[in-house]
Amino acid sequence: MTKVLVTGANGFVGRTAVAALLRRGAEVHAVTRRPADPTSSVRWHTADLLNPHSIAAVVRQAAPDVVLHLAWIVEHGLFWTSTENIPWVSASALPAKEAHAAGASRFVGVGTCFEYDLDEVLSCCEHSTSLRPKTFYGVAKDATRRLVEGFAQLVGLSFAWARLFHLYGQGEGERRLVPSVARAILAGTPAKCSSGTVVGDFMDVRDAGDALAAITLGTVTGPVNVGTGIATSVGMVASMLGSLAGRPELVALGALADRPNEPRRIVADITRLMTETDATRSRSLEDGLRSALEYWAQRAGGGSK
Amino acid sequence: MTKVLVTGANGFVGRTAVAALLRRGAEVHAVTRRPADPTSSVRWHTADLLNPHSIAAVVRQAAPDVVLHLAWIVEHGLFWTSTENIPWVSASALPAKEAHAAGASRFVGVGTCFEYDLDEVLSCCEHSTSLRPKTFYGVAKDATRRLVEGFAQLVGLSFAWARLFHLYGQGEGERRLVPSVARAILAGTPAKCSSGTVVGDFMDVRDAGDALAAITLGTVTGPVNVGTGIATSVGMVASMLGSLAGRPELVALGALADRPNEPRRIVADITRLMTETDATRSRSLEDGLRSALEYWAQRAGGGSK
Repeated sequence: MTKVLVTGANGFVGRTAVAALLRRGAEVHAVTRRPADPTSSVRWHTADLLNPHSIAAVVRQAAPDVVLHLAWIVEHGLFWTSTENIPWVSASALPAKEAHAAGASRFVGVGTCFEYDLDEVLSCCEHSTSLRPKTFYGVAKDATRRLVEGFAQLVGLSFAWARLFHLYGQGEGERRLVPSVARAILAGTPAKCSSGTVVGDFMDVRDAGDALAAITLGTVTGPVNVGTGIATSVGMVASMLGSLAGRPELVALGALADRPNEPRRIVADITRLMTETDATRSRSLEDGLRSALEYWAQRAGGGSK
Repeated sequence: MTKVLVTGANGFVGRTAVAALLRRGAEVHAVTRRPADPTSSVRWHTADLLNPHSIAAVVRQAAPDVVLHLAWIVEHGLFWTSTENIPWVSASALPAKEAHAAGASRFVGVGTCFEYDLDEVLSCCEHSTSLRPKTFYGVAKDATRRLVEGFAQLVGLSFAWARLFHLYGQGEGERRLVPSVARAILAGTPAKCSSGTVVGDFMDVRDAGDALAAITLGTVTGPVNVGTGIATSVGMVASMLGSLAGRPELVALGALADRPNEPRRIVADITRLMTETDATRSRSLEDGLRSALEYWAQRAGGGSK
């Protein structure tokens, strides 16, 4: 049984990654900043990962075979430009150092589609698309990957780097696209959207968790995109939510201005994920959005659907 | 008068950079881990730069116009592969954050020729040579440059990155090329060398300090090579030391094995340094090595020359 230490285990992606690792038979040690409810199947550890001593203590205590490092600052909107990105670069390489020292053989870090040069491509490929992050968050993730990969090569640690695209689903921040549209429609109010012409790659967070578990327990090395490979416009996502809720007339595309300088198209090439890991094929957008609607309806008291 | 905060000010390069900044009319605030002797012309501060609170305190206290950040681990031989490179990445971006917050307008960091792909070029050019560091030290410096440059672009801080090539001269670690050859010859013993066919770009550390001061007080942005632009073999350096000391027969080229996988040629393209800064043209290798010999002769008690 592979023993996996997961940082950021109580976050949006962390919770589904932990669930998927358990489903796939791993022994999971989970790290969080705030104590989480102990369950029978996960061993919880409390640590402040910005404190090197705290990192070292928890890694030695857990003595994992593999680390899945998800922790990072995640405040919606703020993380793009936050100076909090700075300490997380070194703080994301130290767990790799400590894990190697404690006998771990593999380390999986988590990056972002915003590491790529998004101006020039139809879909982002790990091998051929240039890296040119335009946001400070993307710069910090890119620097982290370079640092951790360099360390891994130095000591012979197996290393993979999962680049996440657009995730949605249960536990998502309420101000993000799917929750904000879903909640407005469920409340019977107009869901004000931009023009909706921006194209993304929208993945149910449970599928992302499964992909991360597959990467973590597998042998693929280097960067691996985690997405569906399917190009979907923001307008399509909003319209589908409206249709699924039976209130298509509430979706107000064009009611909000488009954000300037936003990348027009961000879609993953998922050849590596599909051929070099045993990640499960993602559910359809319709199935995922239906689940998201049900989740937000329950959160609203169950009265809307 | 420009107020410059220099970290690593008491190191091999730091001492000559501080001297050059003073010569060029700057007010120098110098940071070191261990308290240094106060002098009339430099304001010394003690700080542990791996402690974020310590960084913040010293930067606020000094309130500099410009920061020249030199501090990094430097143990001879060990720094190539040391895990101590990890914390210095974030710890090199935090001074930029604190300096910007304290009103500074410019930040100069210090990198290395080992950020470049050294397999493919006759001379390393900031604009056209690929970055492909092969050592963990080079990886960490490259990641640091990306992180600090990203932060500088985010907040509109002027940023330059000086890439140092081979430095020699007073204060150099005794196990490095010039001191080890000079000390052997001065002691009248054979100076055992490799084949000497590896080619480098050897700069007197005083010229490097002057170049760093010129970059710091100037307006050039992005990476800038600090070197002489002159290709010189290790054999030439050793032979010239032998000739200058009047003991050419003591230089034993080929007595030691060449290091495997060592880059065969590392030479700077110094077009940027010469045309976009007012750095002084470097002294000749002969002048520099003569000074180095005198320095090591004095350290040995003055009896050898």
